[in-house]
Amino acid sequence: MHRVAVIGVGCTRVGELWDKSLKDLIVESATKALDDAGIDKVDIVYVGNAYSKILQTQGNLGSFTVDSLGFEGIPAVSIEAADCSGSLAFHEAYKAVRSGLVGKALVVGVEKMSDSSPEEVAKALMSCEDQDYVAFTGVTQPGLHALVLRLYMETFKVKHEEIAEFTVKAHKNASNNPYAQFKNPLKVEDVLRSPILADPLRLLEYTTVADGSAALVLCSIEEAEKMGKKPVVEVLGSASATDKLYLPERIGKLSFNATREAAKKAFEEAKFSVDKVNFVETHDSSTIMGVISLEDLGFVGKGRGASLVVEGGIEIDGKIPTNTMGGSKGRGNPVGATGVYQLVEAVLQLRGEAGKNQVKDAKIGLTHTIAGVGNFATVNILGCL
Amino acid sequence: MHRVAVIGVGCTRVGELWDKSLKDLIVESATKALDDAGIDKVDIVYVGNAYSKILQTQGNLGSFTVDSLGFEGIPAVSIEAADCSGSLAFHEAYKAVRSGLVGKALVVGVEKMSDSSPEEVAKALMSCEDQDYVAFTGVTQPGLHALVLRLYMETFKVKHEEIAEFTVKAHKNASNNPYAQFKNPLKVEDVLRSPILADPLRLLEYTTVADGSAALVLCSIEEAEKMGKKPVVEVLGSASATDKLYLPERIGKLSFNATREAAKKAFEEAKFSVDKVNFVETHDSSTIMGVISLEDLGFVGKGRGASLVVEGGIEIDGKIPTNTMGGSKGRGNPVGATGVYQLVEAVLQLRGEAGKNQVKDAKIGLTHTIAGVGNFATVNILGCL
Repeated sequence: MHRVAVIGVGCTRVGELWDKSLKDLIVESATKALDDAGIDKVDIVYVGNAYSKILQTQGNLGSFTVDSLGFEGIPAVSIEAADCSGSLAFHEAYKAVRSGLVGKALVVGVEKMSDSSPEEVAKALMSCEDQDYVAFTGVTQPGLHALVLRLYMETFKVKHEEIAEFTVKAHKNASNNPYAQFKNPLKVEDVLRSPILADPLRLLEYTTVADGSAALVLCSIEEAEKMGKKPVVEVLGSASATDKLYLPERIGKLSFNATREAAKKAFEEAKFSVDKVNFVETHDSSTIMGVISLEDLGFVGKGRGASLVVEGGIEIDGKIPTNTMGGSKGRGNPVGATGVYQLVEAVLQLRGEAGKNQVKDAKIGLTHTIAGVGNFATVNILGCL
Repeated sequence: MHRVAVIGVGCTRVGELWDKSLKDLIVESATKALDDAGIDKVDIVYVGNAYSKILQTQGNLGSFTVDSLGFEGIPAVSIEAADCSGSLAFHEAYKAVRSGLVGKALVVGVEKMSDSSPEEVAKALMSCEDQDYVAFTGVTQPGLHALVLRLYMETFKVKHEEIAEFTVKAHKNASNNPYAQFKNPLKVEDVLRSPILADPLRLLEYTTVADGSAALVLCSIEEAEKMGKKPVVEVLGSASATDKLYLPERIGKLSFNATREAAKKAFEEAKFSVDKVNFVETHDSSTIMGVISLEDLGFVGKGRGASLVVEGGIEIDGKIPTNTMGGSKGRGNPVGATGVYQLVEAVLQLRGEAGKNQVKDAKIGLTHTIAGVGNFATVNILGCL
């Protein structure tokens, strides 16, 4: 088995990019990642995308991507797992490079959502749930998140203000991120005064609708060293796991097995525990998902996630700097690309290129995505040792 | 690297299965494959599907499949490459088992098309082409196949009757296949008298609209031998390749680079050439694709494919038995599952379980899928040595 390095990263601005097509987005992020790696070809492309078939009727993204890049001929694999699409594409690319079956791999995450109507987007967001048993009831993703939020607040006697604070921190970090969607500072009152999406969840607590693409290049550590890459960012652990699709069928509704299982496996591979992690890019598809994820990943005890947020523990200079570039809420959430954005951000932190949001002595970072309300999770651990 | 074995296969009937949901289909094929392998759990699931997001708004098929099977917890990867979805899912599973990163892998291909309107199906079939440069013109998949058919007939001075003969052979083989969609015998006049889909392509020359699911289980040869599996079917070569999406942008329109490239790589891995292959399951999404594929794979010279068909070379006792269970036209074409059906059929042949369509002394079989009119291809070579 080879040790695996990330030798190039790139991304587009996140937002309502009316003038850019799916193809434009792919070409921009991939070209930046290839330039950053200093190469002009790869052996395989892995693409992560969640909704292009629903929103653009564009399938076959493997061929679509290699064609867009002028790489026709090489193999390509298009992977979908809702919010985990990009991070799972990365995980599969990692496995391929790790095994030695593949030399250099390009991973591209891409999503284009803002051209579509709110109804189409709502339908796309629900495509990760069971259509026969969940979606047909008419519940929306914000509806499912709202159920979890209410149950969490009641179970752990946590105030809404405390959880809503997650958004405030997200926008604060996004304000220094040149490619973020929402850079405006917010107060917790602003969040709680924003329109109700599904009681009690507020608009400013929920993830964004966005366009964007992020990309990175993987190869073996030996190859990276041969190319003179320094510092070398290494993938130390990478895992994914599933859970029952339907939330009420699970035993626990306030802690997600998929996250816990993926984290356990990733840490086993990395051969260290969560205490070693210097920063985390986690999945704040809503404030409550951000809070629960911090608990499930082991950064804080059960029911204590909101306190950690309120006490500033997730700030850049806090106990565990979280979503350092703004996360899904601040940076923005082009769904299938989000997992790759997180990885790009982790690489920037580890290389010391995170600008005003640089975490001091960032040696090890963890990225984490979940699909829907926790039916799928990926955890990746990157380090620069 | 491990040598890789297929230790279990299973599939549903192909056809208009009004009483079966996507989930029912998955459970039926996967359960049969697991029973055939004699196991009740696997380490990972790879799912191949082309259109569930467009036709059922069902995404996240990785979690969906493990949930359907009661396997929640384990990792799952959902892969799409139009007609190559199932065979690419197999290829990725093969890589994972080959590398030793995965022990036992379940591969499921699934598609449900017959609940949808002809317009929805036509839209789904076009999702593998570029939406901005090809689909927007209003051309359909049959339209693209018709262009290739006409150009082929004119270039090689081949009569339509000769190419249409492909369907006659397909139905003949399907008549002995218990799970085939179309078992009725046809004459070449029937094919040429059927309605025009896109001049000159006739209805009975084109692939079917169908529901179905096929599955198989992979593990290492060592593991298969430990389980006492005999005979052991081994994956000897597996590769995929891409080409430009847009047919007119390619230099050759009557020979597909993606097929040639994937075949070249698969044979390199297998360390033998096409002469050793005893039968082929190839991609007859239309008669002309079947003919061109036989040429591209090297079973017959350029422009000679139709003659091979007419002379009976593709029959069960012919020079190169082709689509022994009826292929896309006879067995039927649940698109994302088709590549897995081909592999299941190859395993049945190699195990001597192909019934009336058994190829004598079948030791090595090749399966081949292409997306659209050749923008993606996979080639898998299986053997029982």
